[in-house]
Amino acid sequence: MPVQSAANQGPLTTLFASDAANPHAAMPAPIPRGVADYFWGEAARRRALEADILALFRAWGYGDVLPPAFEYVETLAQRANPELQSELYRFVDRDGSALALRADMTIPVARLVATRLHDLPMPQRFCYAGSVFRYADTQAGMQREFWQAGIELIGASEAAADAEVLALTVRALETAGLPDVRLALGHLGYFHALLAALALPARAKEALLTAVDRNSEGALIDFLQATDLPAAARAAVAGLPHLSSNDAATLLARADALCLNDAMRAALVNLRAILDALRGHGLDQRVYVDLTEIHNLGYYTGMTFEALSARLGFALASGGRYDHLVGSFGAPQPAVGAALILDRLLLALRPNAAPARPLAPHVLASTQGNADAHAALETLRRAGLRVAVDLAHRDATPLLDYAQLVGVKIVLHWSGAAFQRLRVGSSPESVPVGDALARALLAEVCA
Amino acid sequence: MPVQSAANQGPLTTLFASDAANPHAAMPAPIPRGVADYFWGEAARRRALEADILALFRAWGYGDVLPPAFEYVETLAQRANPELQSELYRFVDRDGSALALRADMTIPVARLVATRLHDLPMPQRFCYAGSVFRYADTQAGMQREFWQAGIELIGASEAAADAEVLALTVRALETAGLPDVRLALGHLGYFHALLAALALPARAKEALLTAVDRNSEGALIDFLQATDLPAAARAAVAGLPHLSSNDAATLLARADALCLNDAMRAALVNLRAILDALRGHGLDQRVYVDLTEIHNLGYYTGMTFEALSARLGFALASGGRYDHLVGSFGAPQPAVGAALILDRLLLALRPNAAPARPLAPHVLASTQGNADAHAALETLRRAGLRVAVDLAHRDATPLLDYAQLVGVKIVLHWSGAAFQRLRVGSSPESVPVGDALARALLAEVCA
Repeated sequence: MPVQSAANQGPLTTLFASDAANPHAAMPAPIPRGVADYFWGEAARRRALEADILALFRAWGYGDVLPPAFEYVETLAQRANPELQSELYRFVDRDGSALALRADMTIPVARLVATRLHDLPMPQRFCYAGSVFRYADTQAGMQREFWQAGIELIGASEAAADAEVLALTVRALETAGLPDVRLALGHLGYFHALLAALALPARAKEALLTAVDRNSEGALIDFLQATDLPAAARAAVAGLPHLSSNDAATLLARADALCLNDAMRAALVNLRAILDALRGHGLDQRVYVDLTEIHNLGYYTGMTFEALSARLGFALASGGRYDHLVGSFGAPQPAVGAALILDRLLLALRPNAAPARPLAPHVLASTQGNADAHAALETLRRAGLRVAVDLAHRDATPLLDYAQLVGVKIVLHWSGAAFQRLRVGSSPESVPVGDALARALLAEVCA
Repeated sequence: MPVQSAANQGPLTTLFASDAANPHAAMPAPIPRGVADYFWGEAARRRALEADILALFRAWGYGDVLPPAFEYVETLAQRANPELQSELYRFVDRDGSALALRADMTIPVARLVATRLHDLPMPQRFCYAGSVFRYADTQAGMQREFWQAGIELIGASEAAADAEVLALTVRALETAGLPDVRLALGHLGYFHALLAALALPARAKEALLTAVDRNSEGALIDFLQATDLPAAARAAVAGLPHLSSNDAATLLARADALCLNDAMRAALVNLRAILDALRGHGLDQRVYVDLTEIHNLGYYTGMTFEALSARLGFALASGGRYDHLVGSFGAPQPAVGAALILDRLLLALRPNAAPARPLAPHVLASTQGNADAHAALETLRRAGLRVAVDLAHRDATPLLDYAQLVGVKIVLHWSGAAFQRLRVGSSPESVPVGDALARALLAEVCA
């Protein structure tokens, strides 16, 4: 769901590149830049990860949602930040209406709730997994179709809702195999309220946003020199570079001292409540607070976050509170959500993917097309074994050769009335196919 | 994978319409025609069906593949039949190259094998699930984004390969809950060879194709009156309307008598071999043979089929052999595949979908944000229960009211040191949250 930053081009530049994600990228692939084929082991890992994460989301009471792959461009563009607007894949329907591929799942879910589900009890919890599309600069190594799994919690304004989304994101990353996740927490309410207090002309505002977004103290000093501000406002801006810390209590006190209005103070009260609620999930020690984290100025209104792993330099998940988005489609609802970027997660879990090989079946069986043979194989499949039929009806010797070639260890050959198990250098052994054999083979495969 | 026929507009017209697929269609939905939001129960059914079918495919030795959502338009258009070409969603990339959304999974998989996997052992088995996109006429009730699950078996020319794809398709439909599936089997080799023997001028060929595709005896008589043909050729064309039957043996004999060349005879030999191989899967009694089934003249070269249920008047799955498609991208490979149309399958399984409701969690818990409470809920979730937290930290009475509103039967309330189970009209009962409680609640939920 979050709006990704193309400015965030550190480790991403190489790690998110198709060259890293795809060990075959060196071969000529007649597909457009920024998309990829995933198959066999790599595709199975994706599917399994997606299934595990969705199962976790459902266990927390989240229900599946499958938004369409494209929508009216106005639906998507009017709610996106300028960067995301420029990254939409647009095309024209036959009736002349302008369409765009979805660039996140948050906007479609907000539209769905506002237009069709507003009469049902709140909060409503949604989970999803699927690909989203952005015209990112492939020079910078971004994929243009990438996979997200995420949650949207709509109709809850409580700090407990923000904390639940953060906690569930961490649990999802743990489920995936990353135990060392940290949360970088921001709050756009603080910065929005600061901007309101400063009431800057457009050009000065732009300069401030750029300085803060780039995390540049030099640019901030330039801004302060170029801008005429009252002392308190000047202090608030000058203090911004010091508003990020592992020590939340100290940071909150420091930020409190810089407040120019009640809205800034309210943001801090809310952030403190979220940090308190995180303690209830055992996560308060995993938090780094950064009130200058503003690069997601799109639809976010309050808490924003990125989930990071010590193993990697880029965010594995991000999200935040977007209290005005649902209302832009109809009945307003507070809302908060998160999205895991599955491509990055897979990379974090196994940075050096092996070249693609088919996932070898556990069993190769030459059935000679016999019905009893096929029925017997069903028993093995029901037990959980992957069983491929030898379509060429090979005899024993060529069958063993082929099994070696494709890496299958258990080779069965139908001998007219029963299966024989073939082994290199041994005599064939008759095996009665049934539950007992299925258990034995499964044990052999798992050993 | 199959090329769908828009001509096939019988029951489809109403049953595949968004009105039928989506009980909320009467409400104004600000999304383009031909796409839909699926959520909660309906989305969960889709996900579960997809997971069950993919698990079955994997048990038969098929490996996951996830092709990109869009490709170069030349890749897709040059291999599609004219109808499908006209249905592609096209758009332009920033570098000016023409792209299109995938309209099936078969062409992308063929491209993948030909360009990147041709050096690996054959056959290669692929399975997928995902949505595909076609500019269908929504007046006729077709969805423009629809969901397929399917298989591609590449590098096997044997009749056993065709039979495996047919058998696995039937098993998948059985897994989904449709035990009464029948297969309508055609063979484009026969018709292609007939056309070659007739050597008709373009206009006459078009007239013949139209007559056969529309299954119109009148149009066929018109064609024969307008066309000068030798007696044997005339007999072969006149005999076409009689080449569909449940009695495969009689039909094959009849078709054999009409053959004009060896290629027609070879097609019948192949079809007979596939029918023999189907006997080995216990499916020979489920087959209806129709040699005039030609509406998928796209990339199919041999056997083609549709899988039908007695419950419905339209195909739930279709596919066939496409021996020239892989070679159009590089190294040639024989291939055969099938695709289940999940939207239709879901409709067949439950034609009267209930209005969307959230899948109620099994347990609603007011934790008061307590860490011990949250940890206790993890035990319940790990046991398989869907547990939602009451973010508003309600007290007992409003919590019970809210639980009734959202349909949750098991209500827990944290009382400082332990959970109490709340019931309407009873006193709260302390419950130690652990494996024993999880088992008891799971039993209660499943009862």
